[in-house]
Amino acid sequence: MSILVVGTVAFDSIETPYGSAERVLGGSASYFAVAASFFSPVKIVGIIGHDFPAEYLELFSRRGVDLEGLQRDHGDTFHWRGRYHEDLNVRDTVELHLNVLTRFSPRLPESYRNAEYVFLGNIDPSIQMEVLDQIKSTRMVACDTMDHWIQGAKSELAKVLPRIEILVINDSEARLLSGEHNIVRAARSILRMGPRVVLIKRGEYGVLQFSESSVFATPAYPLEEVFDPTGAGDSFAGGFLGHLARSWDGSEGSLRRAIVYGSVVASFTVEDFGLKRLAALSVEEIEERYRRFIELTDFHT
Amino acid sequence: MSILVVGTVAFDSIETPYGSAERVLGGSASYFAVAASFFSPVKIVGIIGHDFPAEYLELFSRRGVDLEGLQRDHGDTFHWRGRYHEDLNVRDTVELHLNVLTRFSPRLPESYRNAEYVFLGNIDPSIQMEVLDQIKSTRMVACDTMDHWIQGAKSELAKVLPRIEILVINDSEARLLSGEHNIVRAARSILRMGPRVVLIKRGEYGVLQFSESSVFATPAYPLEEVFDPTGAGDSFAGGFLGHLARSWDGSEGSLRRAIVYGSVVASFTVEDFGLKRLAALSVEEIEERYRRFIELTDFHT
Repeated sequence: MSILVVGTVAFDSIETPYGSAERVLGGSASYFAVAASFFSPVKIVGIIGHDFPAEYLELFSRRGVDLEGLQRDHGDTFHWRGRYHEDLNVRDTVELHLNVLTRFSPRLPESYRNAEYVFLGNIDPSIQMEVLDQIKSTRMVACDTMDHWIQGAKSELAKVLPRIEILVINDSEARLLSGEHNIVRAARSILRMGPRVVLIKRGEYGVLQFSESSVFATPAYPLEEVFDPTGAGDSFAGGFLGHLARSWDGSEGSLRRAIVYGSVVASFTVEDFGLKRLAALSVEEIEERYRRFIELTDFHT
Repeated sequence: MSILVVGTVAFDSIETPYGSAERVLGGSASYFAVAASFFSPVKIVGIIGHDFPAEYLELFSRRGVDLEGLQRDHGDTFHWRGRYHEDLNVRDTVELHLNVLTRFSPRLPESYRNAEYVFLGNIDPSIQMEVLDQIKSTRMVACDTMDHWIQGAKSELAKVLPRIEILVINDSEARLLSGEHNIVRAARSILRMGPRVVLIKRGEYGVLQFSESSVFATPAYPLEEVFDPTGAGDSFAGGFLGHLARSWDGSEGSLRRAIVYGSVVASFTVEDFGLKRLAALSVEEIEERYRRFIELTDFHT
C-alpha cells in the first residue's frame, strides 16, 4: 500500500568528529521517503527552491518516489547546518535558513488523497494539520515532532495528536511533551493525548513502543563505525511505516517486526554522511541485517 | 554450584528525589550476594566493623549466605553517602568513609577455596588479586571495577583482567578503560586485555554482551517507579552469575538467559531503597517477570 509523507526537503551541512559534508540532500521527508521506498511506494509532499539540483531529484526517482506533490519555489531551499560533538548524541544547530519553507502551504494532488499510510514528518503542526485535512481516508497516520514545536506550537500540536494513530518521538521530546521524567510515565501521559501507540526513539539505545495493552523494547543494532547520525530518526520512521504498509495484519507482532525493520534501516543511515549509505543500499542487505538482529537479541535458543 | 563473592559490605546513606535512607545495608558484596542467593549458594568475603547490626547479618542468613569469610574488625563499617539527581543516572558521592576497609586483607576459609564461580566485586584490584591467589580451582571468574580503580590502579587492574573470564562494567567505565568512545570498539579493545566476555551495563538502557564470536543486546525492563538505583549493577551481576552457576551448559544461550535473569533481579532492586525490595523478593516473582521480559522483547510471534 502507498505512503504519503509530508516534511522538509533540505540542504544539510554537517560536521562530525569523523568528517564533514556540504549542502547534501537532507530533511525529514527525504530520509523518510528513501527509507520507506525499500518496502512500499512513497509519495512526497514538500517544498524545494530554485537551487535544488537535478541529481537529488534523481535519487528520489531512482527509489521510485512520487514527486508530484513536491512544490517548486523561486526562493532558496531550506538549509540546516549542524555540528556533532564527540558524543554523537549531542549536536548544535549552527545555521538555520528556512527560506522557501516560510511559504510552504501544501496542496495535495488528487492521486495523493487516498494514501493508506500517512507520515507527518517533523514540520510545523499547522502544516501537518493542513495535510490531514486534505486526506480522504487512511488506514494509519503516524507523526513526528520536535522540541521546537512542543515548546512553540503546543496548542496546534495538541490538535494533531487526537487525529493520529502513532506518535514517533525521541526520549527527551517525550519528557518535554509530557512533563514526566520517567519514560514509562511519559509514554502513558502521551497516550492520553490521542495516539494509540507511542514509539520512543532512544538513538543508540533502541526503541520503546507503548500502547494501552502492551510494551515492546528493542535495542539498537550496535555499530563499530557511526559517521553521521543525521536522519537516523526519520530513516527509522520510514523503514517502520514502509514495512507496516507492506505487512501490517493488525497484529502486535507485525507492528513489532516493523519497528525492528525501522531500526535496521536506521543502522545503515548512520554508517555514512547524509543519504549516501541509503542511496546505495539493497533489499538483500536489509534482510541480512534483519537476520543478524534476530541473532543479536535472541536468548531462547 | 557455589559462588564466592568478594567486595564491600557497607552502610549506605542515600538521597534520591523520592526520599532518603540512613545507614542501610549496602556495598557491592551485599547486593551481589542477596541477588545471587535466589539461584545458587553464596559465600561472602568482606569486612565489617563493630557497629554492624545483627539484623543486617540476619538478612544474609535468611538468604542462606555463608558468612564464614566475613571478617569482623574493631573499627567502623565502611560508609558511603550519595545523592541522586532528578536524572537518576547521575549521582554525587557526598561522603566516603573507608574505615575498616583500609585494613582489609582477605583470608579465605578452606571451604571457600573450591568455589566453582567467583565474583570479584568492585574493590581495590590488589584485593581482587589476593582472592584469586587463594582460589584453588574455578569454573568461571567474573569481575567488576569502577572509574576510581581504572584511573588510580590501572596496572593492578591490568594484572587481574587476564585471569578472569567475564568483565562486568558500565558504559562510561568501558570507555575510560579502553580510551574508545564507540562502545563496540571499547568492548573489542577490552577483550584484548584478557576477559573472554565483556558485559556492558547501560542502566535503564539494558546490557550489551561481547565475546570474540558474538554480540548480544537486551533492553532493561521498563519501570514506572524507580526509587533508588543503588546496587542495580551488583544485583544484575548477582542474578547473572547466580543463574549461570545454576544453569550454565557452556552454550551462548545459557549465558544470554543468565543476563536476562540478572536484568530481572536488578529491576526489582531499584523499586525500593537499598536492599528492601530484594529482601522481600520471591523466586515466583522473578520467574513471573522473566516471562514478562520475554513478552516485552519478542517480535517473532
